Amino acid sequence: MAKKIIVIGGSAAGPKAAARARRLDLDAEITIIQKDPDLSMASCGYPYFVGGTFEDRNQLLATPTGVVRDPGFFQRAKGIVAKVETEVIGIDRQAKKVNCRNLRTGEEESLAYDKLIVATGAVPRIPPLPGKDLKGITTLQSMKDADFLKKVREEGKVKKAVIIGGGLIGIETCEALQLAGIQITVVEMLPQILKFLDWDLAKILENHVKSKASNVLTDVGVTEFLGEEGVLTGVKLSNGAELSCELAVMAIGVAPNSKLAQEAGLELGETRGILVNEHMQTSDPDIYAVGDCIETVNRITGKKTLAPYGDLANLQGRVAGENVVLGNKATFPGTINTGICQVFDYNAGATGLSETSAKALGMDIVASVNASLDKPGFMSGKLLISKMVADAKTGRILGYQCVGPGDVGRQVAQGAMAIMGNLTVADVVNADLPYAPPFSLALDHFIASAHILENKMRGLYVGLSCVEVHDKLEAGEKPFLLDVRDPVEYEEMRIGRGNMLMPMGKLRDRLDELPQDKDQEIICYCKISLRGYEAARLLQNRGWKDVKVMEGGIMAWPYPREK
Amino acid sequence: MAKKIIVIGGSAAGPKAAARARRLDLDAEITIIQKDPDLSMASCGYPYFVGGTFEDRNQLLATPTGVVRDPGFFQRAKGIVAKVETEVIGIDRQAKKVNCRNLRTGEEESLAYDKLIVATGAVPRIPPLPGKDLKGITTLQSMKDADFLKKVREEGKVKKAVIIGGGLIGIETCEALQLAGIQITVVEMLPQILKFLDWDLAKILENHVKSKASNVLTDVGVTEFLGEEGVLTGVKLSNGAELSCELAVMAIGVAPNSKLAQEAGLELGETRGILVNEHMQTSDPDIYAVGDCIETVNRITGKKTLAPYGDLANLQGRVAGENVVLGNKATFPGTINTGICQVFDYNAGATGLSETSAKALGMDIVASVNASLDKPGFMSGKLLISKMVADAKTGRILGYQCVGPGDVGRQVAQGAMAIMGNLTVADVVNADLPYAPPFSLALDHFIASAHILENKMRGLYVGLSCVEVHDKLEAGEKPFLLDVRDPVEYEEMRIGRGNMLMPMGKLRDRLDELPQDKDQEIICYCKISLRGYEAARLLQNRGWKDVKVMEGGIMAWPYPREK
Repeated sequence: MAKKIIVIGGSAAGPKAAARARRLDLDAEITIIQKDPDLSMASCGYPYFVGGTFEDRNQLLATPTGVVRDPGFFQRAKGIVAKVETEVIGIDRQAKKVNCRNLRTGEEESLAYDKLIVATGAVPRIPPLPGKDLKGITTLQSMKDADFLKKVREEGKVKKAVIIGGGLIGIETCEALQLAGIQITVVEMLPQILKFLDWDLAKILENHVKSKASNVLTDVGVTEFLGEEGVLTGVKLSNGAELSCELAVMAIGVAPNSKLAQEAGLELGETRGILVNEHMQTSDPDIYAVGDCIETVNRITGKKTLAPYGDLANLQGRVAGENVVLGNKATFPGTINTGICQVFDYNAGATGLSETSAKALGMDIVASVNASLDKPGFMSGKLLISKMVADAKTGRILGYQCVGPGDVGRQVAQGAMAIMGNLTVADVVNADLPYAPPFSLALDHFIASAHILENKMRGLYVGLSCVEVHDKLEAGEKPFLLDVRDPVEYEEMRIGRGNMLMPMGKLRDRLDELPQDKDQEIICYCKISLRGYEAARLLQNRGWKDVKVMEGGIMAWPYPREK
Repeated sequence: MAKKIIVIGGSAAGPKAAARARRLDLDAEITIIQKDPDLSMASCGYPYFVGGTFEDRNQLLATPTGVVRDPGFFQRAKGIVAKVETEVIGIDRQAKKVNCRNLRTGEEESLAYDKLIVATGAVPRIPPLPGKDLKGITTLQSMKDADFLKKVREEGKVKKAVIIGGGLIGIETCEALQLAGIQITVVEMLPQILKFLDWDLAKILENHVKSKASNVLTDVGVTEFLGEEGVLTGVKLSNGAELSCELAVMAIGVAPNSKLAQEAGLELGETRGILVNEHMQTSDPDIYAVGDCIETVNRITGKKTLAPYGDLANLQGRVAGENVVLGNKATFPGTINTGICQVFDYNAGATGLSETSAKALGMDIVASVNASLDKPGFMSGKLLISKMVADAKTGRILGYQCVGPGDVGRQVAQGAMAIMGNLTVADVVNADLPYAPPFSLALDHFIASAHILENKMRGLYVGLSCVEVHDKLEAGEKPFLLDVRDPVEYEEMRIGRGNMLMPMGKLRDRLDELPQDKDQEIICYCKISLRGYEAARLLQNRGWKDVKVMEGGIMAWPYPREK
């Protein structure tokens, strides 16, 4: 008898699971139950639809050859029944039945399953603030939200919007609405946006967002939505200020939509995501769960975590789709928290652990910042600023993050592969990567990052992050800041807190102009701190005992500059 | 007493070695001896200078901040003496001296060394053909060559050029001169250009080059240069044809310039490159060698090889620069033959072993072709066509190659990292890579390649390359070719050799129209063969016993199409 497979959820993980199951069992009766009217939505594409990168919403729903993935498509091309606008109201595990309701007709029915796959996704977190039901407050979580915000853009009536939350979706929405001509303020409760980055790299991105005439407020929350006659007119902040706006987008993250599973008595994990094993199997052996509704594992720390990413949802769907047919053959190893986004002319991505998160876990790590172009200057190379994090003892790479207008995608992909391959800094030092001038520097940025970190681990230089240098100055310490760039560079851009400009090409002959107290702390830097490193080596050799390098140089300085 | 370090060669590996030695030993007397007038030339940038991507030759010689790396720069910024236009005429290993001659004055001198680094590079291979000294024949190997070809572009007199050799440099030069308005014919003795690719992927690139009005001839050599009054007027081919041209560029590869080392009694390897150990040390413990003049090792096969790539030269220089100062601490592990190039609107790259090279080594491998966009269609994604090669038993990834207008750089970088991390197909199947619509598909092309190869390894489908399908047809076999695309796709593009068009969405209901002999060989395909794979699964399940998939679909078909 044909196996009955039911999939609850028709966005990413669900349809992938159904399609994989179909390819492995052509006789199975496979049914997808989807609450929304649409199926297989490319939800990560919503911001680009809202922002006008493309206008046809069907592009979010179509196959690569342009066929919209509606129930007819699923039936014809895959032999899968897709019931849309249908809500599952309960799972009867005893009877192995799913009870559902047609949202248009109100009709209820009960469907039997042999294997069930739960892919109920996530729900946006909505804080219980006064005024949260005013007209003009939305999320960007569903196709309906995307349609609404696209309409906002087309109507052109909204002049000011507040985005609450500076995470991935908040920042992508900021760009989308700014491109629609709306004046944006992003309000983030944490001290920084994009918390998968360390503070210093996040600040560089924040500076870029601000340079695009969008405002970003950090360390401040929203306490109330203000309105008149049921319509949003502004938000009130935790610092007492009020921002007027006609639109507010809530983007403070999502929570696993595990309610249905919980009601059915399936175990939840410590993160409130559905508990699954490596086969994506829940506490009920006949029920699997995949996508944003589950709890997964961090492959580096071994800790349970939520990882609501579209790419992982697809991978998990593939695993569950196989296992409901063949038994528990396929496994999903977890996440290393790889993420990336584009914000105006900058990109920002990270994989593995940030310096902050590794330290919070009590790990003994080393980290260093690298700034360089992605390609040679003569090929119009663009800036990359990155941080590599490694285990202090073994040199194993634990994390990599990168921001800038350059080719961040390749860098973060290389970092992710290095982590998955358990590569050490020493391994990456001699990596054989694809080089030609249209693609990278002769020493690719990622390899150079490993060179810098290896030099630091071996004690060839003592590095300070820009944050550490800044904190020293703020604390009233008096390190001697030595800028070894050329005067023309100094005229273009300067921190304004250095003690001396002394071009590297002159330093060798003018060491007598430096502080002659050999115990004086001297911090060398240049534009990206390659010359800064050379200067530090020279001073160390000439007897100065407390010489440091400001990593990443002036390009990595996240604070306001004199010029 | 200060250590005396001499570096012979001032292009890539030499200056890198000198700079690294300087940073580790501020007291050493370091001298670079360079035959050419220029130093630290970004030689991989020559084609872009010739093609007009940039006009100022100093950009090939300058630091990221625009300072030309001339002897004054080396002296001021690094405390390194660089003697240019100076040729080393002999190494006296007994006396530990280098004898050299100033090419301008003819003056000779003898310089003592404690440690010597040989970085004499490579020389272009020039076949001893009749007419090879005619005016109008050049290579693109030196700054002088680049200056000459740039002048050719500026003068605009040359109308036709022949490029002899379809390797990396030949193909890059083809694009450069075509951009200069010159009509190009590339002549390649092998059956394909870019031999780091397998024939089928190389052919796709060749088709693209031809679509840009450059001609490519394969399987044919040049036998003679033709001229009048000492000036080139054409070339004669091995098939008897004559091509008229005013310019010929020899690009049939380079040979290690190991003559000086050999004369000094240093051992050469089986490839005629200078023999070095993993510390870059030659058979004389006080002499190191780096860059294009050495023989290195293939990390996958363990075999000795030549790898004249600019990125590896830099890595080797760094290793030797450290070891001449600190003793043999640093090691260089060898190459995995990663390479990449840009050709008009296409990119082509490879890492590890091709299917052809792995089979030639007698290895038991599996390989499959994948075609997809690099990003979603709504983000204007571009095509990628790739081949993944893995060990048949362990699934360890041995090679990856990719061509197309899409982001080949990231794909090949991921392949290289996977090989260096000893990752298997099963590891990549669940890789956590950076995904957002501006950067990749939700299932990145590289992951999808692993999915396809895993399916093939597990027997979920039997794959044939386009070449295998083509060979069957040419041999008179009668497989039933089933194209499961939609009619509108068929009208746009078709091979013209299929037996039946049957859209995937109709196949399920119209199986009776297929050949009912269940032993009939049926080969399914579509645009990229995802639907082709689904069709094959369906037919297998319905009882057909000899069902196959044409991998990569119509996008990977390298032969002429009906439409």
